[in-house]
Amino acid sequence: MEDTLILTMSCPDRVGVIAAVTGFLAGHGGWITEANYHADAGSGWFFLRQAIRKDSLDFPIEDFPRLIEPLARSFELSWSLSRSRVRKRTVILVSRQDHCLSDLFHRFRTGELDIEIVAVISNHPDLESFVAWHGVPFHYVPVTPESGEAPFAEIGRIFEEVRGDVMVLARYMRILPPFLCARYPGRIINIHHSFLPSFVGSRPYHQAYERGVKLIGATCHYVTTDLDAGPIIDQDVIRVDHGDSPEEMARLGRDIEKIVLARGLRYHVEDRVVIHGNRTLVFS
Amino acid sequence: MEDTLILTMSCPDRVGVIAAVTGFLAGHGGWITEANYHADAGSGWFFLRQAIRKDSLDFPIEDFPRLIEPLARSFELSWSLSRSRVRKRTVILVSRQDHCLSDLFHRFRTGELDIEIVAVISNHPDLESFVAWHGVPFHYVPVTPESGEAPFAEIGRIFEEVRGDVMVLARYMRILPPFLCARYPGRIINIHHSFLPSFVGSRPYHQAYERGVKLIGATCHYVTTDLDAGPIIDQDVIRVDHGDSPEEMARLGRDIEKIVLARGLRYHVEDRVVIHGNRTLVFS
Amino acid sequence: MEDTLILTMSCPDRVGVIAAVTGFLAGHGGWITEANYHADAGSGWFFLRQAIRKDSLDFPIEDFPRLIEPLARSFELSWSLSRSRVRKRTVILVSRQDHCLSDLFHRFRTGELDIEIVAVISNHPDLESFVAWHGVPFHYVPVTPESGEAPFAEIGRIFEEVRGDVMVLARYMRILPPFLCARYPGRIINIHHSFLPSFVGSRPYHQAYERGVKLIGATCHYVTTDLDAGPIIDQDVIRVDHGDSPEEMARLGRDIEKIVLARGLRYHVEDRVVIHGNRTLVFS
Amino acid sequence: MEDTLILTMSCPDRVGVIAAVTGFLAGHGGWITEANYHADAGSGWFFLRQAIRKDSLDFPIEDFPRLIEPLARSFELSWSLSRSRVRKRTVILVSRQDHCLSDLFHRFRTGELDIEIVAVISNHPDLESFVAWHGVPFHYVPVTPESGEAPFAEIGRIFEEVRGDVMVLARYMRILPPFLCARYPGRIINIHHSFLPSFVGSRPYHQAYERGVKLIGATCHYVTTDLDAGPIIDQDVIRVDHGDSPEEMARLGRDIEKIVLARGLRYHVEDRVVIHGNRTLVFS
Repeated sequence: MEDTLILTMSCPDRVGVIAAVTGFLAGHGGWITEANYHADAGSGWFFLRQAIRKDSLDFPIEDFPRLIEPLARSFELSWSLSRSRVRKRTVILVSRQDHCLSDLFHRFRTGELDIEIVAVISNHPDLESFVAWHGVPFHYVPVTPESGEAPFAEIGRIFEEVRGDVMVLARYMRILPPFLCARYPGRIINIHHSFLPSFVGSRPYHQAYERGVKLIGATCHYVTTDLDAGPIIDQDVIRVDHGDSPEEMARLGRDIEKIVLARGLRYHVEDRVVIHGNRTLVFS
Repeated sequence: MEDTLILTMSCPDRVGVIAAVTGFLAGHGGWITEANYHADAGSGWFFLRQAIRKDSLDFPIEDFPRLIEPLARSFELSWSLSRSRVRKRTVILVSRQDHCLSDLFHRFRTGELDIEIVAVISNHPDLESFVAWHGVPFHYVPVTPESGEAPFAEIGRIFEEVRGDVMVLARYMRILPPFLCARYPGRIINIHHSFLPSFVGSRPYHQAYERGVKLIGATCHYVTTDLDAGPIIDQDVIRVDHGDSPEEMARLGRDIEKIVLARGLRYHVEDRVVIHGNRTLVFS
Repeated sequence: MEDTLILTMSCPDRVGVIAAVTGFLAGHGGWITEANYHADAGSGWFFLRQAIRKDSLDFPIEDFPRLIEPLARSFELSWSLSRSRVRKRTVILVSRQDHCLSDLFHRFRTGELDIEIVAVISNHPDLESFVAWHGVPFHYVPVTPESGEAPFAEIGRIFEEVRGDVMVLARYMRILPPFLCARYPGRIINIHHSFLPSFVGSRPYHQAYERGVKLIGATCHYVTTDLDAGPIIDQDVIRVDHGDSPEEMARLGRDIEKIVLARGLRYHVEDRVVIHGNRTLVFS
Repeated sequence: MEDTLILTMSCPDRVGVIAAVTGFLAGHGGWITEANYHADAGSGWFFLRQAIRKDSLDFPIEDFPRLIEPLARSFELSWSLSRSRVRKRTVILVSRQDHCLSDLFHRFRTGELDIEIVAVISNHPDLESFVAWHGVPFHYVPVTPESGEAPFAEIGRIFEEVRGDVMVLARYMRILPPFLCARYPGRIINIHHSFLPSFVGSRPYHQAYERGVKLIGATCHYVTTDLDAGPIIDQDVIRVDHGDSPEEMARLGRDIEKIVLARGLRYHVEDRVVIHGNRTLVFS
């Protein structure tokens, strides 16, 4: 694994942005290994993502903010810089169904997904031994009709304590309260078991069965205070037919959920996703 | 092309239905070339579709109703019998965009889709010469804000006059009034340019763009009085990304629309679709 | 889980087969919950698969061979009968990569895949603790350039000892010798990491990269003595582009491999697959 | 339709290429509307494609070669510049099956595909009136076992006469002789009705049926002297099952062929394809 810096930027679109940024990097020896640009015609906004070999640069990474400052001011750039070697600290929330959790753990364990799973939080104790086998702390935070916001305050506390970068709702069947959603914009990822915006809310496979659709799907999206309406990162579908009961749809859907969540999370931790209004740009 | 009879049946599910029906057919020499059965666990209803070589039967097709009568009574069978050689008389409604029309005409002209296109009706005169080249009568029936139900009464009249079996809305951008929808249940087929139930109504590609979905689609469904909510015959999707404008989505979507409509229409004219409540069974 | 019998049959196609078989079943009270028929026009052969509620039959399952005998003789039927409640005893062969193994274990553990994993055999000791955690015996059977057929004789011995029904090569990177392939026709299932018949043999992702294909895939097939040429059960693909290195293709491909193997194995253990020459019929 | 210049370049990869090129453009007021870069790690080669608003540049397009010269020399750049408003002059070769031809004509007629079809050449006279209806010259060039290279010399002559930019084999069932393939490298596009490299040569659907594959496909590729082995531009597949005869596979395949050819041709005429050895980069 190379030591790579990921630079993402956005600014009002105008002549010379790419030249200015790449000129700056070239002036410091920066070897660009991957480059993506997008000019959004509708909003007149410009976005870029560049991967740069860290050891090619002639300055220490700490100096970047100071060095980029004049350029940033002149082009009204918003930017962020991350390092591929620094794994995102990931907190996974799960309920009883563990197909997504199990899938993420396999990718984590084999190094396929370059994250650090630092905590698993569940409203059921069932998965404790499975999580423990992977050497990851398990937090049982029950949620009852009476518990109000307390469990979610606790989830927030744990997330802070473990210095979480990203929170993943891996089929966590509870709705996060607005205060928690609002605290971590663009940092909470959910997998919804339907092809949004179809079948918002609960029991989407039953809704899909009732409606008689011929494809079912899953959607990985950022969580906002607006239920199931946050920016979509990725989606996929699978074909069903009249012979498939809601239970069989759920079985078929699980494979889509796993893949879409893993893919969406990968895009996120590799800093390939830019949120632009209620849409995302994914530099895949 | 073989001369084949298509027998479709439905009845309350119970022991012995298949045996009774296939026993009846075998007793008359019936050679079954294709057979599909479906027991719907939820409703306790049973469905079958069988293709039988016409020349294997020892009775003339006209006698079928009389011969099947005792069985039909005893098992409470609803049935219908059609002959593959008798092409469904198809009336196509179209507006200005002709990608679906053009596609259907090609399949019709080459014999790939075994239908008889007996009329094309449009609220614009633009496609007259294209339709005429194929030797099919073209009816220009303008629709204005003031024209009310009159144009649709005219459409119904034409459909009757040409003895239409099926009416196809091939991107006909007007909403059929309830009286027309209700007159031909299960005989009017629409292609909607979204993955229903997402993006009901108009400008679905713009809706899809606004929502930031990563897949767009099309839905072929029977028209009912409930807009875009009739039984779905087929659907499909294609991947889009942040670089695709609504116009590009529309371009990509057209290919899906063509294929989904042609596939749905084929299922219909081959008597492969059974409407069951608001869902379909498709014996593909 | 209902107690269901699965009856599969094949015979020369002629009038009255379905009637005879379903008549026999109906005469014994047999409630058919799922029925599939296929007449193969090319070979003139007929195939059926029926699922029957066990408790609806008026005879004990042991009597079936005797009762079906006259029918079988008269129609030259080959048949087999299995019981959905009796799980297929599954032996998994694996090398170092465990994505397929891990996926199958999750489906096994949660009951999604209705099998009994009775042994895991590997030519590497790496996965022992993972397998042990699931309570399944792990057999380390090393294969070296000098070991000849001995390890494969040992694999055969273990398979017999645990009374295996099906052997699954879950990315087992060794070629089974002909004597073992020939001993279990239609009972050894392999996942090949390409869209066969493209890229037979080793390093298919590198072959795919070199050839510049735009889709990569995986194939689940029965193992025969002819390498990578046995009857195909299922296949699927995923899109790649010029930016994907062979390593990234391998990563993307793993998700396809897992799903295709799980799907193929499900078809097999639910007796949905019929081998017909070098092709399969899959009654899905 | 905006007036856009498409600049494609390739060179040995090194620090500063993007900066130099975009700096040059920015220095002349160049407004970049689309930008793609790819560094090929294996070969150490670098590729870029940029779309620039023509009217933003402060020099006439004729001066570009002179102006870029110093940069090109210093970075060993190969480059090409085209103008989106100048439609590629397209010559289509076809045999009797016209589904691809018909599809391309519809896209051409509606302006969806921004090409100029300047001639259709066929070894059968059947499609003359269809082509004539579109106002395009039709050339009947028969090919017989005895005709040798003469018809292909005639095809080359017509291509020169109409000043063709690209030759499209839209299910032209003859093999072009090496002299013709070699004359137009990267300018002859074929649609092959299989998922190459599976089923090279003739009757691929029959080959697919015999092999029992579960997906069939189509491949759009550049023609080289090596049959069916040229650089692949695009591919796609569709699912089939044991019920599909070779004829039904052919029917299903035609829809894939049309779409893959239209997509591949679009990439080509928008200068999105770069040939790199025997592979392509597609900046889609």
